[in-house]
Amino acid sequence: MPILVKKNASSFERSSGELLATLREKHPLVHHITNYVTVNDCANITLCIGASPVMAEAKEEVEEMVSMAGALVLNIGTLRKEQVEAMLIAGRRANEHSIPVILDPVGAGATSMRTNAARRLLEELDVAVIKGNAGEIGVLAGSGGVVRGVDSGGISGDPMIAASRLANATGSVVVMSGATDIITDGTDAILVDSGHPLMGAVSGTGCMASSLVGSFAAVADDLMISSAAALVAFGIAGERAARNAIGPASFKIALLDAVAALKPEDMKEAKVREVSV
Amino acid sequence: MPILVKKNASSFERSSGELLATLREKHPLVHHITNYVTVNDCANITLCIGASPVMAEAKEEVEEMVSMAGALVLNIGTLRKEQVEAMLIAGRRANEHSIPVILDPVGAGATSMRTNAARRLLEELDVAVIKGNAGEIGVLAGSGGVVRGVDSGGISGDPMIAASRLANATGSVVVMSGATDIITDGTDAILVDSGHPLMGAVSGTGCMASSLVGSFAAVADDLMISSAAALVAFGIAGERAARNAIGPASFKIALLDAVAALKPEDMKEAKVREVSV
Amino acid sequence: MPILVKKNASSFERSSGELLATLREKHPLVHHITNYVTVNDCANITLCIGASPVMAEAKEEVEEMVSMAGALVLNIGTLRKEQVEAMLIAGRRANEHSIPVILDPVGAGATSMRTNAARRLLEELDVAVIKGNAGEIGVLAGSGGVVRGVDSGGISGDPMIAASRLANATGSVVVMSGATDIITDGTDAILVDSGHPLMGAVSGTGCMASSLVGSFAAVADDLMISSAAALVAFGIAGERAARNAIGPASFKIALLDAVAALKPEDMKEAKVREVSV
Repeated sequence: MPILVKKNASSFERSSGELLATLREKHPLVHHITNYVTVNDCANITLCIGASPVMAEAKEEVEEMVSMAGALVLNIGTLRKEQVEAMLIAGRRANEHSIPVILDPVGAGATSMRTNAARRLLEELDVAVIKGNAGEIGVLAGSGGVVRGVDSGGISGDPMIAASRLANATGSVVVMSGATDIITDGTDAILVDSGHPLMGAVSGTGCMASSLVGSFAAVADDLMISSAAALVAFGIAGERAARNAIGPASFKIALLDAVAALKPEDMKEAKVREVSV
Repeated sequence: MPILVKKNASSFERSSGELLATLREKHPLVHHITNYVTVNDCANITLCIGASPVMAEAKEEVEEMVSMAGALVLNIGTLRKEQVEAMLIAGRRANEHSIPVILDPVGAGATSMRTNAARRLLEELDVAVIKGNAGEIGVLAGSGGVVRGVDSGGISGDPMIAASRLANATGSVVVMSGATDIITDGTDAILVDSGHPLMGAVSGTGCMASSLVGSFAAVADDLMISSAAALVAFGIAGERAARNAIGPASFKIALLDAVAALKPEDMKEAKVREVSV
Repeated sequence: MPILVKKNASSFERSSGELLATLREKHPLVHHITNYVTVNDCANITLCIGASPVMAEAKEEVEEMVSMAGALVLNIGTLRKEQVEAMLIAGRRANEHSIPVILDPVGAGATSMRTNAARRLLEELDVAVIKGNAGEIGVLAGSGGVVRGVDSGGISGDPMIAASRLANATGSVVVMSGATDIITDGTDAILVDSGHPLMGAVSGTGCMASSLVGSFAAVADDLMISSAAALVAFGIAGERAARNAIGPASFKIALLDAVAALKPEDMKEAKVREVSV
């Protein structure tokens, strides 16, 4: 399965810059049902990119809350039973209103509760974007992913095949994070090389990426482009933040600041390749 | 409804400086029942101002915990049903012991669950201070507030009228945060202009302000003065923090550091006006 | 009960350096069931020292999750009833697999719920290390500890006696944090003087220390040595971080960065004394 570069990235740069400008103008509400470990980082990165975060998970209020939102981000990082119910209630309402649902299946594969929850969400909801690491995507694709805690233990075989298999099985855009991020709808793929290794040294960067994917999805037509734009924005910010960081904690502060400082024209630093699967 | 400056602010500066000195000396315990998004910021700002934070929300222990406290801060930012029960249990005990209760009705108006919870807390408890944004206060005052997620969508009409209406209806001191903060008991008002726009770019500054209102209330006789002192302290720290901040995340770090560094005499930088409603 | 220095610390320095090197090489998974206030700090400090944090508390998944782990950290900082159940389920499985269990009895003594939960965990589980402040250890040892919120109100009598009494009663290694940390198995003790007063000005340093104790326990044979190594590593990082910190918030960032930058050979800066109880 050779990867062929189809075209240059200039149209991507233009669209992704426009998406960022739209985000900054419209401040869409991004409803999160997420874990309690990285929730503050998710709230702040959402603000930094220009959207407006809200976290709400009481099943009594999630329908009302999501109805106001531009996107719904479901993150199973510290899953509880009632949270799955709230995710289903919110997700159904989001589907009715054509509000894009983003699923981050944190730790799917590590425990059967997480794997089953992720599968159930994918079955019962129309999930617009699935964003996970190689292990999680591999598990959900049935391609032999390995997950240890919430870290990817890798995948047996070609990551691109696993990602496109899951995309074809679900109809979702699949975003597989890694040194090179893969964004695919099962037919085409965008590869994102923007980013910095320090992003792996901080808790929460995976969750923050999902919040950005949700933020961009809230103002997008094309979820391949918007998801790639989110990862490119994050990656460019990471590259800039790494320049002066002393360690992981000061890097996280610099990363958030760099996301806030991003301008639409910065998207031309994107390292992307558009390919066929 | 004209705003008349009644007197100069020198007595306020003196009292607020004394309150800060007392806080630093007594380290009152401030019991929070709060959301899981900004809870760490609340704990740290409480430590920085000189008080001692404790977060506890199991209904089995909140009575015992609040009995040791100087103030109780109730924040409905990620409300769950059981949390409302715990708030009522803790609040009743606080009322019995004359421990001031501060309510931050985060997102009231965005969903009926939040609006109803805030109303119920106000009905069943003697709330000393209600601290919210214009939208939230407007909703609770029945003055046409608009709330989108947890952000104020503004208010139709005069904010001062809404704030004083709510104060008169509840007997609480009402603190409406904004570019100019309004603190009113329905008769008199203190306007606080201290602060910096970057405070709106960070998740949690509203919650942190409520923690400070609680901390100052724990050592105060006059809750108008203590609430204004809390917002002035926060505002002055915000102004100082903004001087060297690169973006929202480094600003938040600098803000916490600046609160910790505040001295009683710094309160003379206060931008306050005392007015009649 | 005189404290006698038994030997010089050079063997400790060597072993603690080796433990850090092993940690960095093996990246053990450290399963936390912990509070929602400082959970992000716990995740990040665990990453900074070289281990891999996972937070999971649904009773449906904790057995599976802990089975992959090198250590289990139980922290009752924002205890809920269901959390105690999850801690017991996870703890029993950890015991079956000889995975060391670390208990941080946050606020034991402040409310009977916390005291009882800590006692129940100690009765029903084989706890490898109990790590608390003087008040908490004093309460659990029956030595008259005082706890106010989650802060130590001190202890009536000799801290060393309380710590060794608890160690003898439980068979656990007891770590009592303070200006001088005491680590004892009831017979011998290691005293750690490394550290900086600013560590007490930040929310979460106690919890972070417990995460480090868990991380080192995951690669250790001798839990006295590994617990002391954890506190030494944290203390040295604290001393370094304090050099350039402006206030508590920038100190916390510098502290995390300093932990990440620690090298095995840095452990020779340890201020430790090995003594008989």
